[in-house]
Amino acid sequence: MSIHGKNMIAGTLSAAGTQQIQAHDPATGATLEGAFTLATEQEINQALEAAQAAFAGYRRKTAQQRAEFLRAIGEQITALGHTLIERAMAETGLPQARLEGERGRTVGQLNKFADTLLEGSWVQARIDRAQPDRTPLPRPDVRSMYIPLGPVAVFGASNFPLAFSVAGGDTASALAAGCPVIVKAHPSHPGTSELVAGAIAAAAQKTDMPAGVFSMVHGGVHESRMLVQHPVLKAVGFTGSFKAGRALYDLAAARPEPIPVYAEMGSVNPVFILPDFLKTRGAEIAAGLCGSVTLGVGQFCTNPGLVVTTDTAGLSKFLETLGPHIQNTPAGTMLNAGINAAYESNLEALARRPGVTVLAKGQNTTGQNQGTAALLRVSAAHFLEDAQLQEEVFGPSTLVVAGNDAGQLGQVIAALQGQLTATIYGTEQDFRDFPDIMDQLAQKAGRLLFGGFPTGVEVCDAMVHGGPYPATTDSRSTSVGTAAIFRFVRPVAFQNFPDSLLPDALREENPLGVFRMVDGKWIQP
Amino acid sequence: MSIHGKNMIAGTLSAAGTQQIQAHDPATGATLEGAFTLATEQEINQALEAAQAAFAGYRRKTAQQRAEFLRAIGEQITALGHTLIERAMAETGLPQARLEGERGRTVGQLNKFADTLLEGSWVQARIDRAQPDRTPLPRPDVRSMYIPLGPVAVFGASNFPLAFSVAGGDTASALAAGCPVIVKAHPSHPGTSELVAGAIAAAAQKTDMPAGVFSMVHGGVHESRMLVQHPVLKAVGFTGSFKAGRALYDLAAARPEPIPVYAEMGSVNPVFILPDFLKTRGAEIAAGLCGSVTLGVGQFCTNPGLVVTTDTAGLSKFLETLGPHIQNTPAGTMLNAGINAAYESNLEALARRPGVTVLAKGQNTTGQNQGTAALLRVSAAHFLEDAQLQEEVFGPSTLVVAGNDAGQLGQVIAALQGQLTATIYGTEQDFRDFPDIMDQLAQKAGRLLFGGFPTGVEVCDAMVHGGPYPATTDSRSTSVGTAAIFRFVRPVAFQNFPDSLLPDALREENPLGVFRMVDGKWIQP
Repeated sequence: MSIHGKNMIAGTLSAAGTQQIQAHDPATGATLEGAFTLATEQEINQALEAAQAAFAGYRRKTAQQRAEFLRAIGEQITALGHTLIERAMAETGLPQARLEGERGRTVGQLNKFADTLLEGSWVQARIDRAQPDRTPLPRPDVRSMYIPLGPVAVFGASNFPLAFSVAGGDTASALAAGCPVIVKAHPSHPGTSELVAGAIAAAAQKTDMPAGVFSMVHGGVHESRMLVQHPVLKAVGFTGSFKAGRALYDLAAARPEPIPVYAEMGSVNPVFILPDFLKTRGAEIAAGLCGSVTLGVGQFCTNPGLVVTTDTAGLSKFLETLGPHIQNTPAGTMLNAGINAAYESNLEALARRPGVTVLAKGQNTTGQNQGTAALLRVSAAHFLEDAQLQEEVFGPSTLVVAGNDAGQLGQVIAALQGQLTATIYGTEQDFRDFPDIMDQLAQKAGRLLFGGFPTGVEVCDAMVHGGPYPATTDSRSTSVGTAAIFRFVRPVAFQNFPDSLLPDALREENPLGVFRMVDGKWIQP
Repeated sequence: MSIHGKNMIAGTLSAAGTQQIQAHDPATGATLEGAFTLATEQEINQALEAAQAAFAGYRRKTAQQRAEFLRAIGEQITALGHTLIERAMAETGLPQARLEGERGRTVGQLNKFADTLLEGSWVQARIDRAQPDRTPLPRPDVRSMYIPLGPVAVFGASNFPLAFSVAGGDTASALAAGCPVIVKAHPSHPGTSELVAGAIAAAAQKTDMPAGVFSMVHGGVHESRMLVQHPVLKAVGFTGSFKAGRALYDLAAARPEPIPVYAEMGSVNPVFILPDFLKTRGAEIAAGLCGSVTLGVGQFCTNPGLVVTTDTAGLSKFLETLGPHIQNTPAGTMLNAGINAAYESNLEALARRPGVTVLAKGQNTTGQNQGTAALLRVSAAHFLEDAQLQEEVFGPSTLVVAGNDAGQLGQVIAALQGQLTATIYGTEQDFRDFPDIMDQLAQKAGRLLFGGFPTGVEVCDAMVHGGPYPATTDSRSTSVGTAAIFRFVRPVAFQNFPDSLLPDALREENPLGVFRMVDGKWIQP
């Protein structure tokens, strides 16, 4: 399958522009096959207008039809076979097994949203029946449910070239909700993006969806701005850096009609080790922690970049166990040259902050863009004085913050910025000593883990992958799991409608068999 | 009960500032008792810091305790008796029966949120149990639910001095969610605000809530800015003008940590009369329409300011019936001098737009700030060319837009801005002729009415009082009804937690007896 390098505008390949970019193998620096033409303003407008035109037809499709479309996307992605894996490996430096796993996850989440559509209760139907005899005024019949917002722009992530890119979580949840999607391909894996965009377009055609339901454009900052500022756009999904995420948020907020931006930006994902656990079992978790810090060369949003504990019994043993694990970890190829350069300079800057010492470095390897593991340490007193120490260092490093005593732990929690996750290790004794710690941590993160490690985000109904700013620009939602569908909907009420004019989910006889709140009670169908 | 004019800062009366405002009776222009001291920066900071300090204790209260607090607020408001009604009448010009009804609604919505808390399912508990034997990786146990965001600022509306002011819908939903509230009193009814703030503080004390759970400050633009920019604030609820709402939105979006702003701004609430209905029954609705247009001197967010129909059989009869109803409507006292002046100048400006003719004016009355009813007409062709005709004229007027033919109706719908409501009158024949009209209108409004009139917003579980921009700054929620609680919460997931450390709503045995989604299925307790 050769790489054509074109934009996919509503099912049609298009390359009207003159600017081109190419992809590179981060491990070798080699330029890869294909020249990708950045979208012109006209192409971007075409994509948005086609999305708006497709919206009416797409939102009226039945749940079954939309589910069929989502499943077909998964089938078409699977049908790309090793071609897709090979291209993704070349563009990202990620290993085959990881990318095969990620493909499974991508197809799995499309299917999971299909299941959510078929089950149907996600529309949160609420019915308050009329009370014509109520005094002083009769009560009208009011029924409400969620409907889709409209065209959604998705900015794929560099670190999940499949599961959080062209057909990733944001695309799956927006399409499930009934919204057309325009993806801005990540310039770090444009060939992978092109292959997946072709799969989505093929699925749309096969399942008789309007062609404008999906477009993908290549571009940089300029093209992103045009996309976000287009008047028909109704929401934005983004995963990436704080700087880019905030820029998109600001742009969307300054529109004549502001629109929601779901930007997942950065997080240091603190791991707390409470004193009694540290003393009795601290060393046990060193190997697992090292594995989580260095997994995928530390390039996960949920990478644990901060370990908060106390300088009490067990700390030396914990660090003496963790250090060699870090030292024995070979460096790995990072996603691209920019990410690798940022890792090195951010790590150097961190090591130079007052009070920070480097405890261990991993093994160097040959090859370009190799990220080397690192373990650093600082006192809680220094941490509390230096906001810079909370900045995410995207890569395989972690900073251990040790407080003088247990009291400083609470201060560190209070000083923490918003996070995607917070993990806690404690014994029964610890939770007697810190009875409020879970409640405090819940103020700071979207997901709390009792033990284990934050990397590896389960795609399930209960998952929350989100959290207070600056982890995301909107803590009210999740980007992973089926609850992500709520990002792209709004409620609408129907008052005193005849049954025949109501949407199926709100009809009296409940033809879809969905859970509904009827006269104040949630009712099982 | 004498008016003290002070700010209520976490249960303590405070008037450290030097600037004062007074209230006026709009019907007479008379200055009313009491001088209200604007809050200083220090007082605003005190209120916010007290709110943040109270948040930990308040969010840990049980549902029963928070419900008791909400009910106690209602009881304390009721206990104010005629003192409250009298002051509200003097400050707003609204009649006694209306204000007594509004008080009932205010108490009713506090009680309704108490019921929501006691029922408990609003936290949307989701449970995905562990699958330790799953391959290739075991599935963790993941459980999620909603938790409160933190301190919320509420800006009361001038047109609902009780139900959308100090203890109104926004305050009730934020307190129900577990968020402390800081109200900025509306300068048009500061005495009413003071009385209600006293009731809330008394209720907080009586039910043993932390004092910082509620504060109220007097102020203008400067004080509003300080409030919205304070770092501990997590959300804003607002009802008022487009200009003020957008300014608060912009301010909140520009914060280092952006926060959600739920601003309900303006809406012309179009009423559509389809051709067959117009021909056969149009005149029937003229009296009711006039009543809705002029109810409360047209000072409802849901006032029908636009009637869209066709210049076909029945139009003359409809207008000839509607005109005299408007003519026979006596003018009424508007809420304040500013609102009355704006009504008169906006109405004059509207009458001067190309193609607009004034069909009828209501009866003048003596007294100050009297709003006179008005009926205007324009062609759909003019309407489609002139965006100015969509601007809300806040007061008792309505503009009839008549299309040449049915085709222009669709163009008018497509051109409409976002609305709180859209009302439709049609016969079975009409809905055969316009099969997609409901779907089209759903894109433009938060609530669709089949017949009836949009004024009068039922407080119920299914209500949606919201809609696409510029009706609100966030179409994803409602400001009326129990679903308003979702404005002030975010989801948090708990992974692999022992049962004893989970919040009650997520414990295995479901001690609260709430609806939960367990392993993909919603389960009745």
